[in-house]
Amino acid sequence: MKTLKERIIKDGVVIGNDILKVDSFINHQIDTQLLDELGEYFSKKFTGVNKILTIEASGIAFGVGVARHYGNIPMVFAKKSKSKIVDENNLYTTFVDSFTKGTRSTVCVDKRFLKPGDKCLIVDDFLAEGNASLGLIDLCKQAGAEVVGVAIVIEKGFQNGRKRLEELGYHVESAAIVDHFEDGKVILR
Amino acid sequence: MKTLKERIIKDGVVIGNDILKVDSFINHQIDTQLLDELGEYFSKKFTGVNKILTIEASGIAFGVGVARHYGNIPMVFAKKSKSKIVDENNLYTTFVDSFTKGTRSTVCVDKRFLKPGDKCLIVDDFLAEGNASLGLIDLCKQAGAEVVGVAIVIEKGFQNGRKRLEELGYHVESAAIVDHFEDGKVILR
Repeated sequence: MKTLKERIIKDGVVIGNDILKVDSFINHQIDTQLLDELGEYFSKKFTGVNKILTIEASGIAFGVGVARHYGNIPMVFAKKSKSKIVDENNLYTTFVDSFTKGTRSTVCVDKRFLKPGDKCLIVDDFLAEGNASLGLIDLCKQAGAEVVGVAIVIEKGFQNGRKRLEELGYHVESAAIVDHFEDGKVILR
Repeated sequence: MKTLKERIIKDGVVIGNDILKVDSFINHQIDTQLLDELGEYFSKKFTGVNKILTIEASGIAFGVGVARHYGNIPMVFAKKSKSKIVDENNLYTTFVDSFTKGTRSTVCVDKRFLKPGDKCLIVDDFLAEGNASLGLIDLCKQAGAEVVGVAIVIEKGFQNGRKRLEELGYHVESAAIVDHFEDGKVILR
């Protein structure tokens, strides 16, 4: 998406030679105009969606922005639990490993909010190794809900997330793909 | 707000005699149509706002819903840090005590995202003792930003949040006020 790519070039901050910081418009301060445009962009890429599924906290704003362009459908965000003890009677749970933080989180969704018949679009701000998306897909599987596809704001094209998701047959769309970093600058595809 | 009050009566779940669970439409699964109506409601209560300020994770969706009705102004969410060591050169930080969880969090906003001249509307899903709102007000003070008011989805009218905020001169609006609980039912004002 042109607007996003221009914005990344203008306001994205590269730290070291591998981290792209977009906290001035995506994940600390949010440009809600850009968010709205992202929502519109993805609503044209995926059809037949009746629920948005994301993960707290970074996916929530994007999830709301997308849900609006499907006529204000419900948006569910999976919760990260610090505790290993969760009520498995009422919750679908899975694990998500964080590539950057080196941590494993328990992630859960109340069983009332994922059902057979749900056609979920999974959304997130970043795609790296795909662990968060795969975790959300696992929750949908447990619920018998359908995964229509995976919508990502910024994809790290040099990591394996897309490959892992596509090999499993999932439709992945991202609004911008980081090809690589060069001399402290981000090179988009 | 009529729609919200009806929804609380219909779908709110009272646990014990003091907790109101609204996770089917406010803070786990989000009714984005209701969110949009809440945004419109509050945009008529406060004028001269150029930034929305909230706190992760529960305030984010509501913040986006409100920002849209001010013509897509920026929305900033303060981050909770588990660490007591934060980079005070680049961040405004404060503490927020959680009444329900009995915990104290360090909460921070990057100095780039709160400035003198900002006219902030503070938004959150719940108001109980007002600690989160007071923390966000403190961050605005440190930045020299103006607080236009505090917008709350559900206020617990039997706790002291409103009193504490109004005594400091802040304009508080909430879309629904829980007066008390009675026989496992929520009684709204």
